[in-house]
Amino acid sequence: MPWNRFSGSLSSPKVDVAIDMGHPFLNLTLDGFLKIGTVAASRAAAEDAYHVVRKGNVGRHNFKQTLKKMCKEGAYWGTVAGVYVGMEYGVERIRGSRDWKNAMIGGAMTGALISAATSNDKDRIMIDAITGGAVATAAEFLNYLT
Amino acid sequence: MPWNRFSGSLSSPKVDVAIDMGHPFLNLTLDGFLKIGTVAASRAAAEDAYHVVRKGNVGRHNFKQTLKKMCKEGAYWGTVAGVYVGMEYGVERIRGSRDWKNAMIGGAMTGALISAATSNDKDRIMIDAITGGAVATAAEFLNYLT
Repeated sequence: MPWNRFSGSLSSPKVDVAIDMGHPFLNLTLDGFLKIGTVAASRAAAEDAYHVVRKGNVGRHNFKQTLKKMCKEGAYWGTVAGVYVGMEYGVERIRGSRDWKNAMIGGAMTGALISAATSNDKDRIMIDAITGGAVATAAEFLNYLT
Repeated sequence: MPWNRFSGSLSSPKVDVAIDMGHPFLNLTLDGFLKIGTVAASRAAAEDAYHVVRKGNVGRHNFKQTLKKMCKEGAYWGTVAGVYVGMEYGVERIRGSRDWKNAMIGGAMTGALISAATSNDKDRIMIDAITGGAVATAAEFLNYLT
């Protein structure tokens, strides 16, 4: 049964979004999409809020643009995160172990996939795959440190 | 007593760098610098290796440039990671709790600091702080997912 929860308050915001899709792979992917999408949408909102405070004018046009940006950035970051989480889950299932190499492989595959979806340049896709793997590995290492 | 270890092999590379600086704050910062610096240097090496394989020519000039790029990228990523890890440690000590808000605050402070070190534009620094916080929060969330 699908269920959905979203809770938040100003003093201590909790970010908790959960929808049951009936399979761990789909759950993880959707969870990644929603959580990271929310973060990206908040980032876009905060950025535009700063600009509004700085300039001192609040208009309807401004708000509509912000909303559009929030949706666009949220969908993009969410897609990247969803693909990455799904990839890492798949790599973990195939390799049968949990370590930083899953993050590297998952990141590289995510980079290649996202790059292939937006461009046709083979070199670009390879470089994006390498960068994706490096970023995911770096994030995984920071995990263990903090 | 300072000690240093670096081990690696082709079939299953282990990345493990540790130097004892006598204080957890300094240890964490240096650890972050070295680990993420190594990842970034590897990324630069892999990128250039791909270009060499693709073009099919290996020259001395090429290798020197690659080494320079590895050092530059390694130092940059390493600095960002070191500052972030140190900031998150400091935030954790001040707030007295471990949750995603540490990552957000640490990321925002890191973004602001790195941005302030490279530019004088106040708007740019604020936007970088917001982006830094969002990226760190996203990385923290991905942690719990995978």
